[in-house]
Amino acid sequence: MTEDIFDKRVAALGLVLPAVPKPIANFLPFRREGSTIYLAGQVCELEGEVVYRGKVGRDFDLATGQAAARICALNLLAALRLACGGSFGPVKACIRLGGFVNCTPDFEQAPQVINGASDLFGEIFGEAGLHARTAIGVAALPRGAAVEVDAFVAVKS
Amino acid sequence: MTEDIFDKRVAALGLVLPAVPKPIANFLPFRREGSTIYLAGQVCELEGEVVYRGKVGRDFDLATGQAAARICALNLLAALRLACGGSFGPVKACIRLGGFVNCTPDFEQAPQVINGASDLFGEIFGEAGLHARTAIGVAALPRGAAVEVDAFVAVKS
Amino acid sequence: MTEDIFDKRVAALGLVLPAVPKPIANFLPFRREGSTIYLAGQVCELEGEVVYRGKVGRDFDLATGQAAARICALNLLAALRLACGGSFGPVKACIRLGGFVNCTPDFEQAPQVINGASDLFGEIFGEAGLHARTAIGVAALPRGAAVEVDAFVAVKS
Repeated sequence: MTEDIFDKRVAALGLVLPAVPKPIANFLPFRREGSTIYLAGQVCELEGEVVYRGKVGRDFDLATGQAAARICALNLLAALRLACGGSFGPVKACIRLGGFVNCTPDFEQAPQVINGASDLFGEIFGEAGLHARTAIGVAALPRGAAVEVDAFVAVKS
Repeated sequence: MTEDIFDKRVAALGLVLPAVPKPIANFLPFRREGSTIYLAGQVCELEGEVVYRGKVGRDFDLATGQAAARICALNLLAALRLACGGSFGPVKACIRLGGFVNCTPDFEQAPQVINGASDLFGEIFGEAGLHARTAIGVAALPRGAAVEVDAFVAVKS
Repeated sequence: MTEDIFDKRVAALGLVLPAVPKPIANFLPFRREGSTIYLAGQVCELEGEVVYRGKVGRDFDLATGQAAARICALNLLAALRLACGGSFGPVKACIRLGGFVNCTPDFEQAPQVINGASDLFGEIFGEAGLHARTAIGVAALPRGAAVEVDAFVAVKS
């Protein structure tokens, strides 16, 4: 496979993508339908362990929330590359991200937290990485994770 | 209409699908666009009554939450069959489920709860029933329901 | 550009759409992919200020929540018109709305709140404005907004 510009950028950024997290329940990490890849929600876990467990605004500050969102994005990217057959070459556009911040009822900065994921998509895919997005604060997340992110991505058909 | 393999499986499982819940507000139970059916969120209601009202982790244990999620899935299936003209024959793939668990801020098992819905899709559709998914814990759900689930489903065009 | 029936209806309703809110974080107000426009979540803001800050069921009653949802819809419509090149003429169908109500854990009327958005889509687009929908109550929203709504819209290709 010819190495794609996106793959080169991942390498240039020194990013090492994690293994795709094994789903802890009955779902797939991604499902492709037509030219759209639907990526399942990923929490801030690495090697099977949730890295940040707790609530942003109580247990974690904004910068830590952003670091958690970035880990979610790394897991999404790992699943996306697998869905694309091992290279980011087929990626056409990151359509939409959904961002979920485990937070206290008075937390107001979900968008800033989720930038930790959006920024990484931008670093790798440039214009193609720009996306619509919805970011909300939620009562609870799987395994107590601080952040969860999902995505829809368009690929070349 | 020839009875489809999926319809036969519903019968073999002894499942009787409920009537499609009448929307309590200004929306449709489904909207088809191209070959994708977007199913509106369904709560754990039967015959107009919410079966499980309260919070998982406080009022209900995991097994009850799963039973609630299964009822959500039954309602989704009823809406899907209606959208498909009375048979599951046109179903190609269950693309994505969104699962919402009404829970306490320390609840960590949204994925396990939503398996109550995912498992039912798998029982009926087999490989075609496997899907991407996002499961989160939320502050509140319509009519105090314990669980709500929505779905995107691809049909043969 | 010929004025479309939908544009005429906006005028007949006396609606003046706001400027598309400038994203406060790293995302786009919309992304088009094929014949689908994915609209980013919009909160109840006007001219850069969140109009209703607080929780429905504690700080705001149902009617105020509906007014907040209507403002979200106005912002979505502004983004949609921009995505369509300045006219609603290309709009084919409002596929799906996602509604998020910043509320207390015992609030049960998210669907009624989100009607404030759905009704406006119906007033403008008629049958084409009818949509599937998921409405939930969430722990927190960006900038303390009372309501956030996002949407998928199909356009003529």
